[in-house]
Amino acid sequence: MKARQPTSFLFDLDGTLVDSVYDHVLAWSAALQEEGIEVSIWRIHRRIGMSGGLFTRALARETGIEFDDATLTRLRALHAKHYSVHSANTRPLPGARELLKYLTDTKIPWAIATSGRMLTAGPVLKILGVDPDKVPVITRDLVAYAKPDPDLFLAAAEKLGIEIETACVVGDSIWDMLAAQRARALGIGFLSGGYGTDELERSGAYRVFEDPADMLAHIDEVGGRR
Amino acid sequence: MKARQPTSFLFDLDGTLVDSVYDHVLAWSAALQEEGIEVSIWRIHRRIGMSGGLFTRALARETGIEFDDATLTRLRALHAKHYSVHSANTRPLPGARELLKYLTDTKIPWAIATSGRMLTAGPVLKILGVDPDKVPVITRDLVAYAKPDPDLFLAAAEKLGIEIETACVVGDSIWDMLAAQRARALGIGFLSGGYGTDELERSGAYRVFEDPADMLAHIDEVGGRR
Repeated sequence: MKARQPTSFLFDLDGTLVDSVYDHVLAWSAALQEEGIEVSIWRIHRRIGMSGGLFTRALARETGIEFDDATLTRLRALHAKHYSVHSANTRPLPGARELLKYLTDTKIPWAIATSGRMLTAGPVLKILGVDPDKVPVITRDLVAYAKPDPDLFLAAAEKLGIEIETACVVGDSIWDMLAAQRARALGIGFLSGGYGTDELERSGAYRVFEDPADMLAHIDEVGGRR
Repeated sequence: MKARQPTSFLFDLDGTLVDSVYDHVLAWSAALQEEGIEVSIWRIHRRIGMSGGLFTRALARETGIEFDDATLTRLRALHAKHYSVHSANTRPLPGARELLKYLTDTKIPWAIATSGRMLTAGPVLKILGVDPDKVPVITRDLVAYAKPDPDLFLAAAEKLGIEIETACVVGDSIWDMLAAQRARALGIGFLSGGYGTDELERSGAYRVFEDPADMLAHIDEVGGRR
């Protein structure tokens, strides 16, 4: 019989721990408009959290516009510019700090794995009170492929020194849940990024909570004890 | 046997014909922050399209804060202020003008019914190319209760001179679908406001399309012919 192993938690950042998804949506929308590219805003929302490369490739397919490398570089810079206007006002989601503190106090391993780069994630981590020198934080800069590829979560598990099959991936988007499945981790979905329960469950969430506060209130249901 | 009656279409406005839902979300978020009221942004998104009175009452219940009449008036004014900054850039959703033109050309009756007031809806109608002197437009100002109450759609049907039971209510939010059921109309859901397919179907949509362009491409499936 396989030995029972304690659970650990690998968190997505935007929309899962901080209330920043809608700022990212509007920042991408403004960036695309500035480049004269017309995309409905809900289509952008549905792609937040996935790799920026896949995001723009999917948009190119949907709009029928070929994005060259120069356009991609400009889009990424415009997004960072527009996003930075709002990111100072980003708030932690309800219960985010409390949930992380509970896990730390209970000595349950946890880490953060985000499709964002350190440039945009850094200020948000500060607002959340997470010190990347003390907590494993894996950003897009550190892996070859972002979500829905499993690399970010695999790297986070490795940094924690745990087996990915014993971990729960906690995220608000279907890209987190798909990456969790590809990594053979369990997925826990949050509604706080704007997806509905069914979308998260269909993409693999074995449990769905409203936000970090709701997960903390039900922590015993997902192995959150020593 | 009941006589077969031609179909008509009663459209929601924001998120259904114009790409304005996310602007409303951020405008409400900014208004609430200005009043020192903390609400996660996804909770605002999930309430767009419902009556402003019910919206604030629901927020009051969720946040445990009692909103007095003065606060409500200030919130409404702040929302209008923040929204007006963006509404000049609002774009019709793909296929919106074409769908309305098709219905007009085919002599299929249609109207617009929105939980918004003429103050915010007016500029958006202009962008859409809809003249409220020629097309029945029912706004919040004209009925006692907005969605999910059926009054807006009932008033729109009356103005068209049709029986509501023969109409399709087209909207992007579950509030449209619930109002459609209460009015005994058929609901058609669009993904363009950011809800998922399942949420719309569960609240009563008998058909879900991506946006106006997608509905126009499948217009024969929903009785869109003379």
